[in-house]
Amino acid sequence: MTETATRLAALREKMRQTETDLVALGPGSHMQWLVGFHPHADERPCLLLVSEAGECFLMPALNAEGSRENTDIAFHTWSDDERPDAALAAALGAIGADKAKSVVLDETMRADFALRLLGALPDAKHTFTGETVGALRMRKGESEFARLKTSAAVADRALQKAFAAIKPGMSEKELATVIRDHFASEGAIPLFTIVGSGPNGAFPHHQTGERKLAEGDAVVIDIGARKGGLPSDITRMAAVGRPPEGYGQVHTIVERAVEAALAAARPGVKAKEVDAPARRVISDAGYGEYFVHRTGHGLGIDGHEPPYITATSETVLEEGMVFSIEPGIYIPRRFGIRLEEIVILRADGPEIFSSLPRDLHVSGA
Amino acid sequence: MTETATRLAALREKMRQTETDLVALGPGSHMQWLVGFHPHADERPCLLLVSEAGECFLMPALNAEGSRENTDIAFHTWSDDERPDAALAAALGAIGADKAKSVVLDETMRADFALRLLGALPDAKHTFTGETVGALRMRKGESEFARLKTSAAVADRALQKAFAAIKPGMSEKELATVIRDHFASEGAIPLFTIVGSGPNGAFPHHQTGERKLAEGDAVVIDIGARKGGLPSDITRMAAVGRPPEGYGQVHTIVERAVEAALAAARPGVKAKEVDAPARRVISDAGYGEYFVHRTGHGLGIDGHEPPYITATSETVLEEGMVFSIEPGIYIPRRFGIRLEEIVILRADGPEIFSSLPRDLHVSGA
Repeated sequence: MTETATRLAALREKMRQTETDLVALGPGSHMQWLVGFHPHADERPCLLLVSEAGECFLMPALNAEGSRENTDIAFHTWSDDERPDAALAAALGAIGADKAKSVVLDETMRADFALRLLGALPDAKHTFTGETVGALRMRKGESEFARLKTSAAVADRALQKAFAAIKPGMSEKELATVIRDHFASEGAIPLFTIVGSGPNGAFPHHQTGERKLAEGDAVVIDIGARKGGLPSDITRMAAVGRPPEGYGQVHTIVERAVEAALAAARPGVKAKEVDAPARRVISDAGYGEYFVHRTGHGLGIDGHEPPYITATSETVLEEGMVFSIEPGIYIPRRFGIRLEEIVILRADGPEIFSSLPRDLHVSGA
Repeated sequence: MTETATRLAALREKMRQTETDLVALGPGSHMQWLVGFHPHADERPCLLLVSEAGECFLMPALNAEGSRENTDIAFHTWSDDERPDAALAAALGAIGADKAKSVVLDETMRADFALRLLGALPDAKHTFTGETVGALRMRKGESEFARLKTSAAVADRALQKAFAAIKPGMSEKELATVIRDHFASEGAIPLFTIVGSGPNGAFPHHQTGERKLAEGDAVVIDIGARKGGLPSDITRMAAVGRPPEGYGQVHTIVERAVEAALAAARPGVKAKEVDAPARRVISDAGYGEYFVHRTGHGLGIDGHEPPYITATSETVLEEGMVFSIEPGIYIPRRFGIRLEEIVILRADGPEIFSSLPRDLHVSGA
């Protein structure tokens, strides 16, 4: 049985459990996971449709031949000089889904794709993929684990290159270039290279800029790249010479928050029960208002995917799930500290992908 | 008046003309065009909402501080430990849009963002941005023209580098690397580097691969990169030594199709009236079934945007619109030929951005 056949069978089992008549995926990571590829994504409606009876593509004619190399699934094509409505109707009819009452939509697909499909199914109720494709994607097999681990090792080495390169007067962008160049040298495609120096570190999603690193800066380095189709994601802290006043105490609190979340993560516990102890460590230390995000997110084909480790998530964690643990404290106008591990949940707890310590890296200044 | 204020005023004028109560944009190019930036795009609902009375953001708390550097528009924030519904309701109320009856949705936003918004406005009818933001974005000013032209010049030079590098035995990916390296050397971010050699050229959206260029191959090179925030897009043809049998005749037909479309493009004509003459040249020559796509697409912040030059588009072309003219003929298992110009429509016809001829580049083999 091919991987696609196995995954389609697992999806149909989830569809029966959730009384779903139709699953519709756009050209993105859900489609990639299910059938191993996705056609070029643009403004041309393109959907993979799965019902109990069968599966088929609504396919822009332009992409039909190229996609045919990747799949045997039937195509209902439409060309640039016609609207896709007739091909969509034919596709729905071909798999007995033209009267679908309950539709699972790929939440990431373009709004116009989704509303066109719902327009063709006026009686349908929609949900998103959380209980079906999303639930299946959360648990990784050993081959995915091995590939994610390979990708993580590349990120570890890129981070070590960054540590070695840090010096006062270098801009954030220059440091990001060192990281990107290392990723490229190992055949990895950089996804993000956040370098938040000094006060910029207090913006969790800081856009790496022209600010020059200065002595006494704490520097948040949060990087990821895609290698072998799968992403990495790691955050570590560096200091340019002596860290700012009060840094060490806050770093210790974030480290304890990471440890508390790692200790709580076991199969059978809810995601919010992993978020809570990290949040409690930070709140109890008086920094609660400065921990402005969730504790973590899943990682697979997408850099952010379920399970999300939030204060309110009821998702029950299972063996084989891969997610980040990344609490942070962001003190406006001073510095930010985030420490991030990616883990796979084993029967006895989380296994960390990275081999780098979470200590502050002090670069000689 | 700032550019944002000018564009918001123009948008409100379009909203009045189209009886639109609310425009909702996701973190993407429409938002970038309107307010000059967009926050980090991920699974967290983030919307820019514009009504007659005002404008505001639904903003993930995580991105609030970083975004505040870029805009004075009010934020309604929500954090990872709550759902965005209350913040969305507050945002709609703040601009008097909580009873909106007609909503324009950014067609590119995620399906879940759009359906969440429509769920909060159960009486609203939706359309997409074609008559409002899309219509405004089609006409470029001289400063956008100058920046697009700069970006196009970088692509011309990258293509010349590729021509110089072509030799038998080189893989498509290796040639793409030459192109990407050139883009990077000029500070441009590569967007796509399609190298379709020999029979691969017959796939319009071929994924550049490991196939090695061989003597007698025709090679489609379709490349683009972002420079100064704006993209380029150009396609030219190369041959490795002597082109395949019958190549010259087909190249001449595609060239005549380009010329026919260029001759037809004038302010006041419909987009389909530019597509038609290109299509007619190819059909009359007996290759109609091998011209599987539209004649062109607009280019601005997005590499593909309105106006689309299709067989059925009623869009009336206006002075200042920027779009591609790119007919092609794709002969399965043999070769493909596409020639692509980006033009800006002037009062007296199209002005071509590229300075490269459309002749076949024959590389010494």
